[in-house]
Amino acid sequence: MKIEQLGEIGLIERITKKFRVNTESIAVGAGEDDCAVIELARADYKYLVATTDMLQESTHLPVGISPFQIGWSAVAVNLSDIAAMGARPYAFTIAMGLPAHTETAFVDAMVEGIADCASAYDTAVVGGDITRSKELILTGTCFGFADKPVRRTGAKVGDLICVTGSVGNAALGLKILKEGLTVPQKVEETAKKALFQPVPRIPEGISLADSGLVTSMLDISDGLALALAELARSSKVGFEIYEAKVPVLSEEMRAALRDVDLRELAFFYGGDYELLFTVDADVLADEFATLQKKVGISVIGVVVPSEEGICFKTGQGKEQIKIKGYQHF
Amino acid sequence: MKIEQLGEIGLIERITKKFRVNTESIAVGAGEDDCAVIELARADYKYLVATTDMLQESTHLPVGISPFQIGWSAVAVNLSDIAAMGARPYAFTIAMGLPAHTETAFVDAMVEGIADCASAYDTAVVGGDITRSKELILTGTCFGFADKPVRRTGAKVGDLICVTGSVGNAALGLKILKEGLTVPQKVEETAKKALFQPVPRIPEGISLADSGLVTSMLDISDGLALALAELARSSKVGFEIYEAKVPVLSEEMRAALRDVDLRELAFFYGGDYELLFTVDADVLADEFATLQKKVGISVIGVVVPSEEGICFKTGQGKEQIKIKGYQHF
Repeated sequence: MKIEQLGEIGLIERITKKFRVNTESIAVGAGEDDCAVIELARADYKYLVATTDMLQESTHLPVGISPFQIGWSAVAVNLSDIAAMGARPYAFTIAMGLPAHTETAFVDAMVEGIADCASAYDTAVVGGDITRSKELILTGTCFGFADKPVRRTGAKVGDLICVTGSVGNAALGLKILKEGLTVPQKVEETAKKALFQPVPRIPEGISLADSGLVTSMLDISDGLALALAELARSSKVGFEIYEAKVPVLSEEMRAALRDVDLRELAFFYGGDYELLFTVDADVLADEFATLQKKVGISVIGVVVPSEEGICFKTGQGKEQIKIKGYQHF
Repeated sequence: MKIEQLGEIGLIERITKKFRVNTESIAVGAGEDDCAVIELARADYKYLVATTDMLQESTHLPVGISPFQIGWSAVAVNLSDIAAMGARPYAFTIAMGLPAHTETAFVDAMVEGIADCASAYDTAVVGGDITRSKELILTGTCFGFADKPVRRTGAKVGDLICVTGSVGNAALGLKILKEGLTVPQKVEETAKKALFQPVPRIPEGISLADSGLVTSMLDISDGLALALAELARSSKVGFEIYEAKVPVLSEEMRAALRDVDLRELAFFYGGDYELLFTVDADVLADEFATLQKKVGISVIGVVVPSEEGICFKTGQGKEQIKIKGYQHF
C-alpha cells in the first residue's frame, strides 16, 4: 500500500504507535499534542544541549542502504553530535518529507530504524512532522543534558590528540560503492555496515567527559582532516600527527586489502562517526590506562602551537596535511 | 553570487553571524560547536516543550511569498505550536536544504526573516544544519518552557469554545492566489500578509494558560473544522457552534467582499494561526472580561457530549459540520 492511500491521519497513527514510550518524564509524547512535553525535574543537569541534522535522498543516502538503516542513520548522526559534547541524549524529534508514492512497508521499516537507534541510546522519540515532498527527507533534532559539555575550544599545546575506535571504515564502503573497488566479501560487508548504520559514540563520549581529562572534542563525520582543521581553528592550535598510530580499519581488514591508500581513507573521506579529542598532558599514566580500557582510544599525535600548522610527523621531518573532506557546497 | 561559489564554511559564517545572541543563558550558540548549549538554571520551569515543522517549496510556499517571509514562516509555524501549549518559547534550531544555485541574497533575506521572527518572540536561534537539496526545505525545531502546559484533552461538557483574533484571513489569501478571486487591493494585501507572514499567538497563549481558566487548546493551522474535530477526538466531546459568532475576517474586509463563502473561509481552509480553546463554564463574568480585554477572544459555541457531534446551532435546529481542511496525504 502507498502512503497516499493510507491518508495523513492513518499514517501518523501508524508511526506514533511505534514511538510510544513509557518513560515517566515524557509527559506528552509523539502525536499526542501540539508539542512534546518533558518533565525537567528528573533531568537534574546544568545544561540542555541541542542539535539538528537533515538527511536527503539525493545527497546523503548511499546506494544499497536499507529503509531501516536510513531511519537508524537519521538518529545516529544527531546522537554523534550529542556524543561529541560528552552529553547524555534524552529526546528526539523527527520531521519527515515523504513522496506520496512511498510504500507503507518502507515507512514502517524506516520508523523501526528510528525507534531502534533511539532506544539503543536511551533516547525517546517525542514528536515530529510529516509532509509530502519530492524526495525523501529526514530532519532529526536531538536534545540531551550535560553538566560539563566538552567544547571544541579547549585544546592546549602539549595535549595528546586521540581518536576513538578505528577510522576509514565508512570511507572504504563509499569507495567500494563509488569507485567499484573490489575487496573480499567480509571486508565489503564490514565497510558497508559502517557506512549504512553508523554507531554513535554515546557511552564513549560520556566516559570521556566524566573523566575530566578531556580538554576538547568533536566528531569526525566530515573526515579526519577537516575535523583536525576545525579543532585547530576553534582552539587556536596546531597538530603533529603520527601517521603510523592512526587506527585505520581493523588489522584483519588491512591485511585483506591491496593497493588501497590508507591515508586517503583515514583523512579525506567522511562518514566515520568516531570522536576526535584532546587529553591534558598532565594525565597520570594509570588514569589514562583506565580510561583507555573503558573507551578504546588511540593517541595519534600532540597539540603544537598554531604557527606549526597541521602536519604529519615523519622520520625526516614534517609534512603538511591537506585540508579536504566532505563539504556540501 | 550563488551559494555554491561561497562554499559551505563561508555560508555558515554568513548565516550564523545573524544568529548571534547575547543571552547569557545560551552558553553555546549557532555554528559554535557540535551542539547548542543552554543553561537550565535560568529556565526555572517544570516542563520543557518541543515541536518541529518542515516547510517545503513545492508543498508549503504560496506564489509571491518573499524570502524574508519564508524565513519568518519557518519560525512562526513552530512558535504557533508552542503558543498552543501556553508555553514560553526559548530556543530554535533551523535545518536548511538549499539548491546549489540559490542566490546568497535570497539566503540573506530568508535568514533575516528567521532572525526577526525569533527575536520578536524572545527566542534565540541556537543551531542548525545546511545541506544541498533539490528544492528549498526548512525544518525548524522550537523548545520552550511551561509550568502548566495546556493539553488538547481537557475540554469538558458545558465549557465555552473560543478563538483568538479573526479567522479566514490566510484562507482568503489562498483563494485569491489559487482561484484568481478578485478583491479590493487593500483586502488583497491584508489577506496575503496573513498567508505569507503568520503571527504566532505567543503572548495570547501565555495569558490564556496563566489565567488558569483554559481547559484545552490547539492552533487552527489546518482549518477550524479539522481543529474542532481534533479537539473533539482528544477530549471526547462534541461542539455546538454559533456560526454568527465566528469572527470571520474584519468587518471592513467583509464589507468590501461580495459572493464570498465566509463559512468556507472560516472552516475549511488552513493557514490561519489562531488559537482554539475551551474555557471553564464556571468562569466569573469579570474574570472572563479581564482575559477578553487582554487577549481578544470570541466565544463561538459550547462543548456538548460527544454523541452530539460537531454541529452548527441554527434557529431551526442543528447542522452537522463537515470535517475537511488541509491534509498532506
